[in-house]
Amino acid sequence: MPDRPITFRYEVAPTDTDLVRELVVSTGVFAAAEVEVAVELVQERLAKGEPSGYYFVFAERDGRTVGYACYGPIACTVGSFDLYWIAVDRACQGQGLGRLLIAECERLIGAQAGRHIYVETSNRPQYAPTRGFYLHCDYSQAAVFDDFYAPGDAKVVYCKRLTP
Amino acid sequence: MPDRPITFRYEVAPTDTDLVRELVVSTGVFAAAEVEVAVELVQERLAKGEPSGYYFVFAERDGRTVGYACYGPIACTVGSFDLYWIAVDRACQGQGLGRLLIAECERLIGAQAGRHIYVETSNRPQYAPTRGFYLHCDYSQAAVFDDFYAPGDAKVVYCKRLTP
Repeated sequence: MPDRPITFRYEVAPTDTDLVRELVVSTGVFAAAEVEVAVELVQERLAKGEPSGYYFVFAERDGRTVGYACYGPIACTVGSFDLYWIAVDRACQGQGLGRLLIAECERLIGAQAGRHIYVETSNRPQYAPTRGFYLHCDYSQAAVFDDFYAPGDAKVVYCKRLTP
Repeated sequence: MPDRPITFRYEVAPTDTDLVRELVVSTGVFAAAEVEVAVELVQERLAKGEPSGYYFVFAERDGRTVGYACYGPIACTVGSFDLYWIAVDRACQGQGLGRLLIAECERLIGAQAGRHIYVETSNRPQYAPTRGFYLHCDYSQAAVFDDFYAPGDAKVVYCKRLTP
């Protein structure tokens, strides 16, 4: 567990465009096109506000942003949410910050009457820690789409049902 | 099969906003919020052009638009496409226009090096003809997400692999 206080921030500022890019790049697991998608969600939120459907949680320690998550309600559903991104600065991994961020997302989604949270990742070896993380956080594998991202690279969908 | 000539149109015009709304409403199966999503995709395409990622096929007969489909590549994948919408005017159903539209989408997606097409629908009784349509067009059920749209209303995902 982190030994210094963590504070959450929910407002999104123009400077978060670069912050999110640096965080996502620092993890070392995402391709350039994926990094740009993460940045685009920040830009969408800045341009449209809450109607963008993208909600953010930033984890800050000692005045520095050390991780973030992005989630939002899935259109035309009652209570289904996507967890679009969760990333912790590589230098700060292994301290429970990912679990803290996902727990805070779950709390906020529950407060928005969320029933389910869905999250997707790849079955490639480099994402094995990611998959282990979701299972550890009580997400269950809900589907596998073979060759989805590319030949030999399946998409795995995890789901957590929130208990009211 | 339709006995009068069908022509396809791929350009999107501002008048398609209302056309798509009328087509989708005419099917009688979509809720108001879903209709608005269909219209938003047209608006996104009009605002951003091809970078929107939304491609359209309109089927026209006797100068009238009798059906349409909307598809696009899934970001950060190699060759996976979503079929977002397919609708045929209620008065023109049962004439093979849906099969014609989906076949034209498959041809265009194949020409864009697409490998897979995904399409989602509900398992509610009112969508039984829709599910039968996808199976009839050689789509396979790839996943079911229970209670996704609402309690008791699952999402069913179908997939078709295109053969090069």
